[in-house]
Amino acid sequence: MAESGGKLQTTVGAIAPLALEYTAGDDSRLDLQLADADCIGTAAHVVMLSRMPVRPRLFSRAEAARVIAELGRIRRLAQKGRFVITIADQDVHLAVERVLTARLGDLGRRVHTGRSRNDQVAVDLRLYAKDQMLSAMAELLDLASVLARFARRNRLAPMVGRTHMQPAMPSSVGLWAGAYAEALLDDLALLRSAYNINDQCPLGSAAGYGVPLPLDRRLTAQLLGFAAPCHNVMAAANARGKLESVILMALSQTMLTLSRLAQDLMIFTMPEFAYFRLPPEFCTGSSIMPQKNNPDVLELLRARAAGSLADAFGVADMVKGLPGGYNRDLQETKAPFMRGFQTARGSLRIMRPIMAGLAVDRRALRAGFTPAVFAADRALELTGRGMAFRDAYRHVKGRLAELSDADPAAALARKTHLGATAGLDWGGLFRRIAKEKLATARQRRYFESKIVKLMALAHGIGD
Amino acid sequence: MAESGGKLQTTVGAIAPLALEYTAGDDSRLDLQLADADCIGTAAHVVMLSRMPVRPRLFSRAEAARVIAELGRIRRLAQKGRFVITIADQDVHLAVERVLTARLGDLGRRVHTGRSRNDQVAVDLRLYAKDQMLSAMAELLDLASVLARFARRNRLAPMVGRTHMQPAMPSSVGLWAGAYAEALLDDLALLRSAYNINDQCPLGSAAGYGVPLPLDRRLTAQLLGFAAPCHNVMAAANARGKLESVILMALSQTMLTLSRLAQDLMIFTMPEFAYFRLPPEFCTGSSIMPQKNNPDVLELLRARAAGSLADAFGVADMVKGLPGGYNRDLQETKAPFMRGFQTARGSLRIMRPIMAGLAVDRRALRAGFTPAVFAADRALELTGRGMAFRDAYRHVKGRLAELSDADPAAALARKTHLGATAGLDWGGLFRRIAKEKLATARQRRYFESKIVKLMALAHGIGD
Amino acid sequence: MAESGGKLQTTVGAIAPLALEYTAGDDSRLDLQLADADCIGTAAHVVMLSRMPVRPRLFSRAEAARVIAELGRIRRLAQKGRFVITIADQDVHLAVERVLTARLGDLGRRVHTGRSRNDQVAVDLRLYAKDQMLSAMAELLDLASVLARFARRNRLAPMVGRTHMQPAMPSSVGLWAGAYAEALLDDLALLRSAYNINDQCPLGSAAGYGVPLPLDRRLTAQLLGFAAPCHNVMAAANARGKLESVILMALSQTMLTLSRLAQDLMIFTMPEFAYFRLPPEFCTGSSIMPQKNNPDVLELLRARAAGSLADAFGVADMVKGLPGGYNRDLQETKAPFMRGFQTARGSLRIMRPIMAGLAVDRRALRAGFTPAVFAADRALELTGRGMAFRDAYRHVKGRLAELSDADPAAALARKTHLGATAGLDWGGLFRRIAKEKLATARQRRYFESKIVKLMALAHGIGD
Amino acid sequence: MAESGGKLQTTVGAIAPLALEYTAGDDSRLDLQLADADCIGTAAHVVMLSRMPVRPRLFSRAEAARVIAELGRIRRLAQKGRFVITIADQDVHLAVERVLTARLGDLGRRVHTGRSRNDQVAVDLRLYAKDQMLSAMAELLDLASVLARFARRNRLAPMVGRTHMQPAMPSSVGLWAGAYAEALLDDLALLRSAYNINDQCPLGSAAGYGVPLPLDRRLTAQLLGFAAPCHNVMAAANARGKLESVILMALSQTMLTLSRLAQDLMIFTMPEFAYFRLPPEFCTGSSIMPQKNNPDVLELLRARAAGSLADAFGVADMVKGLPGGYNRDLQETKAPFMRGFQTARGSLRIMRPIMAGLAVDRRALRAGFTPAVFAADRALELTGRGMAFRDAYRHVKGRLAELSDADPAAALARKTHLGATAGLDWGGLFRRIAKEKLATARQRRYFESKIVKLMALAHGIGD
Repeated sequence: MAESGGKLQTTVGAIAPLALEYTAGDDSRLDLQLADADCIGTAAHVVMLSRMPVRPRLFSRAEAARVIAELGRIRRLAQKGRFVITIADQDVHLAVERVLTARLGDLGRRVHTGRSRNDQVAVDLRLYAKDQMLSAMAELLDLASVLARFARRNRLAPMVGRTHMQPAMPSSVGLWAGAYAEALLDDLALLRSAYNINDQCPLGSAAGYGVPLPLDRRLTAQLLGFAAPCHNVMAAANARGKLESVILMALSQTMLTLSRLAQDLMIFTMPEFAYFRLPPEFCTGSSIMPQKNNPDVLELLRARAAGSLADAFGVADMVKGLPGGYNRDLQETKAPFMRGFQTARGSLRIMRPIMAGLAVDRRALRAGFTPAVFAADRALELTGRGMAFRDAYRHVKGRLAELSDADPAAALARKTHLGATAGLDWGGLFRRIAKEKLATARQRRYFESKIVKLMALAHGIGD
Repeated sequence: MAESGGKLQTTVGAIAPLALEYTAGDDSRLDLQLADADCIGTAAHVVMLSRMPVRPRLFSRAEAARVIAELGRIRRLAQKGRFVITIADQDVHLAVERVLTARLGDLGRRVHTGRSRNDQVAVDLRLYAKDQMLSAMAELLDLASVLARFARRNRLAPMVGRTHMQPAMPSSVGLWAGAYAEALLDDLALLRSAYNINDQCPLGSAAGYGVPLPLDRRLTAQLLGFAAPCHNVMAAANARGKLESVILMALSQTMLTLSRLAQDLMIFTMPEFAYFRLPPEFCTGSSIMPQKNNPDVLELLRARAAGSLADAFGVADMVKGLPGGYNRDLQETKAPFMRGFQTARGSLRIMRPIMAGLAVDRRALRAGFTPAVFAADRALELTGRGMAFRDAYRHVKGRLAELSDADPAAALARKTHLGATAGLDWGGLFRRIAKEKLATARQRRYFESKIVKLMALAHGIGD
Repeated sequence: MAESGGKLQTTVGAIAPLALEYTAGDDSRLDLQLADADCIGTAAHVVMLSRMPVRPRLFSRAEAARVIAELGRIRRLAQKGRFVITIADQDVHLAVERVLTARLGDLGRRVHTGRSRNDQVAVDLRLYAKDQMLSAMAELLDLASVLARFARRNRLAPMVGRTHMQPAMPSSVGLWAGAYAEALLDDLALLRSAYNINDQCPLGSAAGYGVPLPLDRRLTAQLLGFAAPCHNVMAAANARGKLESVILMALSQTMLTLSRLAQDLMIFTMPEFAYFRLPPEFCTGSSIMPQKNNPDVLELLRARAAGSLADAFGVADMVKGLPGGYNRDLQETKAPFMRGFQTARGSLRIMRPIMAGLAVDRRALRAGFTPAVFAADRALELTGRGMAFRDAYRHVKGRLAELSDADPAAALARKTHLGATAGLDWGGLFRRIAKEKLATARQRRYFESKIVKLMALAHGIGD
Repeated sequence: MAESGGKLQTTVGAIAPLALEYTAGDDSRLDLQLADADCIGTAAHVVMLSRMPVRPRLFSRAEAARVIAELGRIRRLAQKGRFVITIADQDVHLAVERVLTARLGDLGRRVHTGRSRNDQVAVDLRLYAKDQMLSAMAELLDLASVLARFARRNRLAPMVGRTHMQPAMPSSVGLWAGAYAEALLDDLALLRSAYNINDQCPLGSAAGYGVPLPLDRRLTAQLLGFAAPCHNVMAAANARGKLESVILMALSQTMLTLSRLAQDLMIFTMPEFAYFRLPPEFCTGSSIMPQKNNPDVLELLRARAAGSLADAFGVADMVKGLPGGYNRDLQETKAPFMRGFQTARGSLRIMRPIMAGLAVDRRALRAGFTPAVFAADRALELTGRGMAFRDAYRHVKGRLAELSDADPAAALARKTHLGATAGLDWGGLFRRIAKEKLATARQRRYFESKIVKLMALAHGIGD
């Protein structure tokens, strides 16, 4: 195939060094993360070619097995960090082809038949994204579990509920932490939706216009564990970049949730509040100020939420108004795409031990309650007994002093409706998390079993 | 209830005029769009209160019916554009309450029992969003239908496939237009996912901390046709703003797709191409240059895609790092949120007649084919017959002249694999669109029947 | 001239209503803000035409005077809010031309000679921007004055200096508030730079390609008080949109500064700090919670900083990758452009009385000092006397208790170097502000005197 | 000093590996770019300490000279890429201190007296930015020169002027290219403005609250060639991040200009236009399609403009609403900041040879002229002779055929007013560029001479 940024040109033409530097960017470094996916995608392609009804066959079964065996070797190298993309290679696709050719001769050269680097990078990125997203989803659920357990453990710990950052009404640590667990479940739904859009196989779209060969695109999709092939081949090409921005937007929503949790923690661990204490091994202090418990991790997370949003919109912006068909602009989406996973996954992973180790100071929490915090609840109770709304308010306002001995725990206990401090359905929440965990684990197993099965074709295939 | 931007203060305190102006913003104008939802939400709340097991009952069934009847009247006023939000009202919630009280006296004042403006605006926005999203999905599917029909009609019309904006390989108008139809179906999946996250009822969350009254939140959720109530009440409060950004992100993806279609149309209608001619009633010309066919609609759409991304980014950014619980910042999300629907829906609606009326100039399309466009296909065919990849290339390169009489139609016919010019599954595409249309229409009917049923409680309810 | 979105077409052709609605957008409402500038720009154009060396003269001096007199009348109407842009007008340019023609007949029709709506809107926007920016700069300086006075007044009020939101070292209210005054002066430099780029006159660029008439572009530039004409006419056309984004970026920097000030105020007015108390007429409270002092204004400002960034980003994005020459996309920059001024100016204006009326609670400020806050200072003093850095630290760490009676006032007094608590050059700061005020006032006077002189040409011009 | 992310903690406490990884980010790699600046800033600090009026002196002159000599050695190492930041170092500041201490013992440990890593990184970034910005400005001016020369060379080459991407009026290659040269000069003004805001020395601000030592901040500012010290020390601390976003916004404006130039080139080099041919060594082709001249560089530039905007806004967003004083969030601004320079400078550099080598096809340019392109000019000429506007239009519209033999060259010649095709002031343009080049070179020389002088203090300083 003759496409994808015409990188081949550099081996035949005389590209200006400045142009080479400008176009190469960080690609050879970033592409190392795609080595595994490139081997897998290539294996599926070769299996498909070996079954393609042309005469003579492009690959015998034995030849295909030999290629797959070699691809397995490269995967193992890559997993050990020992696979190398040279400058002459330019990208992972040519690096893999170079090794195949060096070791298998003409057999290696033939793997590119009926394929373009455009659909290679497309399938690589989708395989990479599946792997990353399954991990992100599992990590999100781990954090949601920790948050939910923390919440249930502290469900009776009174905490002033705030609006406008100001004390407002009685609430609980359980309600506060549980709210973040549930927000993450909404984020999970976004990730799943992005996962499903990603779960279509572009292989066989070539440069976006197909090839005059009887490729079996359903077979490759099935070998790689995709739900289905992308249908229209130009749609498959146009999806590049857009798909990345869809996924980055979903990840940035997770970061939004975490950024708010981080902000709350930064406020409530200030000595003026001291509701919570971060686990010391996740803070940095100062060698002279022992009271200092700098929440660097949380600050960085907050900044990374901004970076994550910016990356999501930068990538969307690269796609906006782009003419149809492949454009080299898309190369620029790779770095923010990979950064997006790193940021979101790293942030999910680090919040887990922070929440698991968060110390709760009930005395400090209790000290936050002033009589006025109970006023609204009191007025509401009166309305529940038939007093008119405005009258109840006036009534309570004139008797604020009487609220001074109100009991936060009793206040929490009185809010019994669904989702309120005494009406939280913990069983339901844990069942929901468990169900999602199961579904995610099942998807992971399915995906991996497909890959194992595909790579096993290296063995014992008679011809 | 004692919350939500403390707007009540203005009626009792002495807010500086500058502060009033600064805080009011455009709210009273924007809130008109929420009048219908506010009446519906209030009706559900009143029905629930009338069934709440407190003594004395807050509302008898007859009283509830009278309130609902009055709410029905307000809805009809609003639909005719005759409902007014005064400056003293500040927002739609107080405007509705004012009218209720003026006409029903004490009964009107009681509707706010156990409710906060925070959950009122939350439920209003979710009802508004359901309505808008169902319309957006239907409009998206209408455009996808038109695109698919246009594509099938022109499936045999050869068109040069491009990469890097440069001629690359033989393709067809059908492949090109069909690709956009399919991209829209991916966008639909995002809209559906956002729809589902939105489809949870926040009513009863009050200011984010619940109330000490036995509200039946499942009942209100069910009366309003939501799939379920939001569980944790603080999660319900925290979802404000975030939910808007989720929806705006989904809408901006639709705009991304349309922006690329618009860009292609702008290029291919330049006189240097003249592949297509926009329907004249969707162009603006110049009174002196008869050849001018300015694609203003497409240009504005391209710009609005940028505006749509910026709005989605801006709203997400308002939420990023925000402390938990209600913050007045969220008011600022309303204008971009409503703008987002207006932009996406307006753009979907206008692209439909443009694509339906797009004239195709097959001669101009044919003229775009140079011999070189066939080269890659030719080489691929040779590899299919066993010639090595690089050899085939060299072979073709030396005989480019022989390609001069290649037939584009034949080239299209030779790409038979799934999704290529001769391998497009039109039936499958149309079935997919039809299925989605059916599902969307069913959701619309379900939603509306619930509202009708709720509002019908105004009649014939004995006590 | 025959350009600018071909809006004329609607009067002659048959634009689809949907297209008309989609293309019109909010323009007729937004354009009201340009009425004054449009009259002024037209006056300068007509004066220039009346002096243009063609035979016969396009306007006699008397005719020009009549046109200008009429333009003066329209300006007065517009200032009273009584100028109307009808739907048939579509924009302010045609509305002004319509009125001129209605009242002056053929004379009115001739004002458009040698001009395009493209350069009309370009000059209108630049005149509008000059006016807005001069006001914004004056308002910024007013706030900087208030901040500087507040800072000087409270220069001896100790306040814990924070890093990572945690208490760190002794500081003062004066240092804190003075820092924001100085940040605003940096923002002013950006506004000035944007002002200067804007201060070039595009009039005469027509549709971006000039006209075959001997226009005197230096004259119009000079009549309108611009520093110079834009040179290259296509550069003048290409500047549209980009210029708006330059100005919006500068305004968004002012919003960034204010957003941080607002965030600090929101934290330090929480009851847990109570360092400051907002003037009550700039808060909203709750009718039941007397302690509540909701900082709605500050919250909205924080959100509007995000909106302001998003608008700046959106406008830049509309320009990114746009082909050269006028594109209708640019119409979409108008709403965020005007919104940008409204947001930044409104925010500057409201922060002034808030800072002027901010109450300082010295007891609460003092209560924030713990012994550890003095530790770093103490160690630094030891190093100043020759003790090695790490040794000093260890020394102090072992004697933290001894710091318990440290005196914040003394700590502030000991930091005497430039810019530290006892080394602030108040005189210099006030002189700097005064100098900037003078420069801004001078620019305003110059600009206005030019306009007055131009409009005075309506009187006493013999022919 | 005891500040800046408390990184020291890691050497004494037990930071969780996950936290270390999360907080370290890419810092040690990025910081290599600051090694030179860190040595220079440290040299200035040490000279100042050696002159500080405390007893005993902190450094004798000879000691200061020894330190500076060693810093000079480190600079040379760094310039050769042989300076190493280890994981234990964490950042460049500790790496330099480590080497100094290893080689100079106690002398090395003393350099940190009265300094914080916060003001160290602040001064490093400002020195780095000065250097980068001076280079960027010079590169911008080089490209502007090339564009201006290309424009003048082709000032008589007719080219259809476009609006809405459609042919509109006669124009020239000179007008087109010259417009970009002038846009760059506007961008330069923004860079200069950002340069000036950056040109204030933060050294001595410590952690943002100064130190109780008689630092001479004017001296360090002067030694380092800054225009002045930042005044208020907290303002110096708060400027971090904001300053980066100011600079990134300025750089992104340069990218906006280049993105439009790139877009024009991509369109006008399509075979359907063929106005221009890119220098082949700046294209990539395909080994089989000889006609292919893929403009990969331009595509990547277009995408990088989006990335550049996203980075500018991401950084601004990190600062938005941040509480005053140092926050660890700021670390995240470093990567996009450095990326911003790399992107803008790389893009400026690569456009220069592209424009210098751009081939112009006058025949293709001429072929773009249709009779209608002359219509507007013709009508305008009639109005210049007194015919009423609408009449002239009608007149020309009825005689379009007569325009068929219009001469583009004559059309260009007829537009003689300032800035039009025959009214471009080439001398003025070149003088303007030359003046800016001179000013930039002078700034560069001043800056470098200061550094040379400072580092020369390593030699021959008696005590």
